[in-house]
Amino acid sequence: MSSTPAERIILGIDPGTNILGYGIIKCVGQKMTLVTLGIVDMQKMDDPMLKLQTIFERIILLIEEYHPDEMAIEAPFFGKNVQSMLKLGRAQGVAIAASLSRQIPATEYAPTRIKQSITGRGAASKEQVAAMLQSMLSIKDMPAKMDATDGLAAAVCHFFNNKPSAQDKSYTGWKAFIAANPERKKS
Amino acid sequence: MSSTPAERIILGIDPGTNILGYGIIKCVGQKMTLVTLGIVDMQKMDDPMLKLQTIFERIILLIEEYHPDEMAIEAPFFGKNVQSMLKLGRAQGVAIAASLSRQIPATEYAPTRIKQSITGRGAASKEQVAAMLQSMLSIKDMPAKMDATDGLAAAVCHFFNNKPSAQDKSYTGWKAFIAANPERKKS
Repeated sequence: MSSTPAERIILGIDPGTNILGYGIIKCVGQKMTLVTLGIVDMQKMDDPMLKLQTIFERIILLIEEYHPDEMAIEAPFFGKNVQSMLKLGRAQGVAIAASLSRQIPATEYAPTRIKQSITGRGAASKEQVAAMLQSMLSIKDMPAKMDATDGLAAAVCHFFNNKPSAQDKSYTGWKAFIAANPERKKS
Repeated sequence: MSSTPAERIILGIDPGTNILGYGIIKCVGQKMTLVTLGIVDMQKMDDPMLKLQTIFERIILLIEEYHPDEMAIEAPFFGKNVQSMLKLGRAQGVAIAASLSRQIPATEYAPTRIKQSITGRGAASKEQVAAMLQSMLSIKDMPAKMDATDGLAAAVCHFFNNKPSAQDKSYTGWKAFIAANPERKKS
């Protein structure tokens, strides 16, 4: 096949209420490369509304800087108390809304599915997931916080579960939006 | 005092996962009038992402049509199972993000506080709250679904808890945004 494979940029998010982790990968055909990864630290914020605002604004900034075509988001674990679940749900809802506000399709993955996709084992530790990501993406300097690799893991899981076929050259998400709204490219 | 009191428009939201209720009031000084109330029915939607998208888009439409200055949102009851709380949290997070995306400050109120503000009793029934709202706002045709009056109740509670002082003439929210961004008024 001599056709050029589609390029996709995937933003992965691990939406915590104290630390949000994110990772961005660029995928060309069957290959992926790391674009960036990091965290948003909200541990010192007391106001829950300020935290939600921070999540929304930081994800919008990531979208505007890196123009992802798709977003993958890690679902919270169950088994915590109802108050924790409400807070996690809110954080997740705000993150999803940030992608919706920019016409970027969001897909949710359970933590075990993410671990399974990356390490082959749903019960793998965070350290094992991080080590596998470091090897897959040739990451030299691993971040101190595992939340960043958790966000990256969601993006990689999405790539593994939505690989383009060899014939697939269609553009999606941001590129389709730009194609349909050329005047938005400048802003 | 002969000064003109500030006009404020308050959007109240009761963010359920199957039915979202909303109510909008206009407040001039110490007086309030009903603008509209209604529901967004998502009972026939199976896809949770579609529900969240619907919540986001419908709240944006309400904001663009009625230009609220402030949003009041009812917090979910605790005591349900963790899965329900996660879903309710997500719905609430998306609703809050819709207001944040339009620079509208959002305030959250517990259900008992809303009932207390309107009926004087935190344990009042939904029917008692609805009857009091009907009387306060001279509503002729009450909606079939209580979710709409629950949304309206959040708006009225916010008004009672944030009454402007007699000297207060400052503009907030949408009007401040328009004043700062006059070119946005046309869109």
